[in-house]
Amino acid sequence: MAAVRNILFVMYDQLRFDYLGCAGHPHLKTPNFDRLAAMGVRFDRAYVQSPVCGASRMSFYTGRYVSSHGAAYNNYPLKVGELTLGDHLRKAGVQSWLVGKTHMKADAEGMARLGLAPDSVIGARVAECGFDVWDRDDGLWSAGPDGIYDARRSPYNAWLMAQGYPGPNPWQDHANAGVSAEGDILSGWYLLNSGQPANIREQDSETPWLTRRCIDFLGSEAAQAPWLCHLSYIKPHWPYIVPEPWAGLYGPEHVVPPVRDARERQNPHPVYRAFMDNRIGQAFARDEVRAAVIPAYMGLIAQADAEFGRLLDHLEATGRLADTMIVLTSDHGDYLGDHWMGEKDLFHDPSARIPLIVYDPRAAADATRGTVCHALVEAIDLAPTFVQAVGAEVPGHILEGRSLQPWLHGQAPEWRAAVVSEYDWATSPMAADLGVAPRDARLFMVFDGRWKLMHCEGGFRPMLFDLQTDPQELIDLGDSPGHVGQVARMYDLLHAWARRIAQRTTVSDAQVLARRKGAPERVGVLIGVAEAGDVAPDVAALLAGKAQARFV
Amino acid sequence: MAAVRNILFVMYDQLRFDYLGCAGHPHLKTPNFDRLAAMGVRFDRAYVQSPVCGASRMSFYTGRYVSSHGAAYNNYPLKVGELTLGDHLRKAGVQSWLVGKTHMKADAEGMARLGLAPDSVIGARVAECGFDVWDRDDGLWSAGPDGIYDARRSPYNAWLMAQGYPGPNPWQDHANAGVSAEGDILSGWYLLNSGQPANIREQDSETPWLTRRCIDFLGSEAAQAPWLCHLSYIKPHWPYIVPEPWAGLYGPEHVVPPVRDARERQNPHPVYRAFMDNRIGQAFARDEVRAAVIPAYMGLIAQADAEFGRLLDHLEATGRLADTMIVLTSDHGDYLGDHWMGEKDLFHDPSARIPLIVYDPRAAADATRGTVCHALVEAIDLAPTFVQAVGAEVPGHILEGRSLQPWLHGQAPEWRAAVVSEYDWATSPMAADLGVAPRDARLFMVFDGRWKLMHCEGGFRPMLFDLQTDPQELIDLGDSPGHVGQVARMYDLLHAWARRIAQRTTVSDAQVLARRKGAPERVGVLIGVAEAGDVAPDVAALLAGKAQARFV
Repeated sequence: MAAVRNILFVMYDQLRFDYLGCAGHPHLKTPNFDRLAAMGVRFDRAYVQSPVCGASRMSFYTGRYVSSHGAAYNNYPLKVGELTLGDHLRKAGVQSWLVGKTHMKADAEGMARLGLAPDSVIGARVAECGFDVWDRDDGLWSAGPDGIYDARRSPYNAWLMAQGYPGPNPWQDHANAGVSAEGDILSGWYLLNSGQPANIREQDSETPWLTRRCIDFLGSEAAQAPWLCHLSYIKPHWPYIVPEPWAGLYGPEHVVPPVRDARERQNPHPVYRAFMDNRIGQAFARDEVRAAVIPAYMGLIAQADAEFGRLLDHLEATGRLADTMIVLTSDHGDYLGDHWMGEKDLFHDPSARIPLIVYDPRAAADATRGTVCHALVEAIDLAPTFVQAVGAEVPGHILEGRSLQPWLHGQAPEWRAAVVSEYDWATSPMAADLGVAPRDARLFMVFDGRWKLMHCEGGFRPMLFDLQTDPQELIDLGDSPGHVGQVARMYDLLHAWARRIAQRTTVSDAQVLARRKGAPERVGVLIGVAEAGDVAPDVAALLAGKAQARFV
Repeated sequence: MAAVRNILFVMYDQLRFDYLGCAGHPHLKTPNFDRLAAMGVRFDRAYVQSPVCGASRMSFYTGRYVSSHGAAYNNYPLKVGELTLGDHLRKAGVQSWLVGKTHMKADAEGMARLGLAPDSVIGARVAECGFDVWDRDDGLWSAGPDGIYDARRSPYNAWLMAQGYPGPNPWQDHANAGVSAEGDILSGWYLLNSGQPANIREQDSETPWLTRRCIDFLGSEAAQAPWLCHLSYIKPHWPYIVPEPWAGLYGPEHVVPPVRDARERQNPHPVYRAFMDNRIGQAFARDEVRAAVIPAYMGLIAQADAEFGRLLDHLEATGRLADTMIVLTSDHGDYLGDHWMGEKDLFHDPSARIPLIVYDPRAAADATRGTVCHALVEAIDLAPTFVQAVGAEVPGHILEGRSLQPWLHGQAPEWRAAVVSEYDWATSPMAADLGVAPRDARLFMVFDGRWKLMHCEGGFRPMLFDLQTDPQELIDLGDSPGHVGQVARMYDLLHAWARRIAQRTTVSDAQVLARRKGAPERVGVLIGVAEAGDVAPDVAALLAGKAQARFV
């Protein structure tokens, strides 16, 4: 099987699984996303390893579960020593480039301990999660009275200033704000301002800028060698605001009704209740908030789709569709008021389920083009898919996901029984309110395609949904006497996963198997040997001093 | 509380918990081990994290469970990035020195990936499990027809040659072999030769040599600064052979009867059966093997005890007993024919339980001197004990053990409900015979002080022992219908452990708690805010462009 030469790994931030035309949204049009789906396979049961940016991305980039890599929340440093996509692909001669967001926090203490200078090639890659940086832009260039959120230099802000946008932070004041008739800034941070058009030229907004940066990369000297390019967009993540013509494209009449039910508020699970009742949940429970936010969110997606089309056209015009794998996905979803929630955090489908489309240019994938695959897929499956696609051996002792290549090539592999996702809410004030210790404020989802269990450390009961009879996940069966057996079965799946071997990353399974054939006696290690007659004559001769070892 | 200045961390290899005078052995005299027990606390329910040298030691040195550090078997490299005792103590100004064995295998691939040169200070410490090497000697300088087991230079062999011992490998031909009247080498590798006196001057054998190397260190310039010295003896690990006068000290009349029962061979657990039936088990089932090996094993311990006395005298004479914590322990035990087994590997007490004596020189420990503590202790408890003893803060997000200091100081802390040990037998030919895949050939022990469960991956039933009614662990209740509830309860303990947070090592619990008080709005991150009136006036002013961020 020929390898693909390049991989274009496109990620959107906070893009719901069902906000694509090809995924069935009744109003939103995404002709270019749909075009990719027609070229490849759309995986419609893909889940993230954690419904929060940082932890989810570290799983995408390491190919490992959150509890394996340890960077369980935003700005938890990824420990020195964790291997990344970049490490695996470089071994196969493929360079990994970043254009956009990673949410990577470097393990500065670990780097100092090992003497890794951040400005060395090795140190920079360790600090940047294995990528070589074309442009890193995490898209959170916010500023408040106490200072700025992200201490890095913003390449996007620098570019905006070079275009003549005024002030110290055009990201905040222009790209993510509207303007009143009187010239006042109408910040996109306020949800009720989301309907305003962003006060920026359309082509200067974040999504077109990153697309151009990617196209610049594609035409560069760097792209002459085989590459993975991680084009990682900021949007449609909040602040929810978009310039015209996208701001006016959709209106309240295109907002689908929220998926929520009064029964969800009756005696809810305490952790779920805490999330519903926080400021975010309360805001998104308001119809006027959804009416303002969701059209902007849809406009941001429409813009992303248009830019994606531009990118596909460029790849086609430059011949790259013939040798480039293209992946479109997101780091998690967005509740948008469903289940009385905003944001992400918990494991209902709007949060933990993601869009995933994979285009494989090779002829072996021709039979599956335009199809939908219902396999239970995890975010960590992409790393081994990429490693296999470029023709390298998948290090199964390090990468915990499974290559999607068999699905892409029309095979029906044996597959996992369930997907697992995790969430560390230990830094949340809600954990303080509920009196949950840092080590106990952790949630686990296990979903087998029908039943979805949420386990909470800290002494809480589980939550359980039956997606066959309750596809909208409105009826929590976690304390249902009739479902004790299902709960136990789901816990069995969770615990088989929890006992997995995750850290034996320095020895491959093949090396283990080779060792089974080892003969310690041949190097003089005799365990359980009673006397000389029990070993081979050459071993006995050597131990009697009548022969010499070959290498001594 | 004043800190201790130094730590002498003495480890024997394969020393059973019950082969000490103070532990009640009916024949073996260990007056110097007993002297330490009178000075400190003897922990009589201490267990290793794995009953095999390499994995157990990596847990001692990292303070982490085997499935957390990943070096699950001998010569599985400890991955770059894992923190060690040396790393933690150096932060407190204490240097960690090695005299003897670690069984450390460096992660050469990981070091190369991060550009760590083995001959740099940082690289050498990474390669040597965090220690500065005074002398490293793993004591397995065997040679066979295909070459040598350990590619390192043997400092002990070099020293023996300098003393005039002939041949390329006096470790094998003299220190670990007898000699016949005709001058033929009688290798100590053969169990039935164990009764022979080793053909070496007593003071030149391994245990006195390492003691002298330690005393050399104690008198060196290096020991002028606070230190931990890991004096890590090779013996009484096989080859079981010792020079006179120790060879003749004990005879078959001092061999205690084996702890075994015909019932153990009736329908045994398949994994247990495989171990019983291997060459080692078969050898130790023979009375003549035990009659030859055990007196030699006892002689090796008697020699170790005498050398330990010499060391205590030296510490006393040099004033070091006043400021030095002293620990005596082992990396695992030795079945010696009990349970139809030789070696270690499984979790019966002769294998997984270890001697552990801790002398704390501080006045706060005066009340506990000479006492025995029955708390459930794990090998990983020593690392935090050491860190606390030198006055540093214990990094509980990295070290998974618990400091023993409260017990040493007469307190009764809340304590763990169970100890856990693990064993990776994936490289064993028995795994091939039983058809067990590399990732499934793993065993777990969980012991709550009464019930001991062994869980086997790969579809096997568990083993269960009730040490209250069956202290010798002869009756396997793993498939007893009357013990289904106990099995389930023990699995609950195992799974609570399996779900533990083990890899969030870059963020402390204190940092997590501090983040709960964070105010994202102060740096301009507004999540779930509907409008300007919902935030503080200074935040609103800034977002309206009417104020500037403090740091932009």
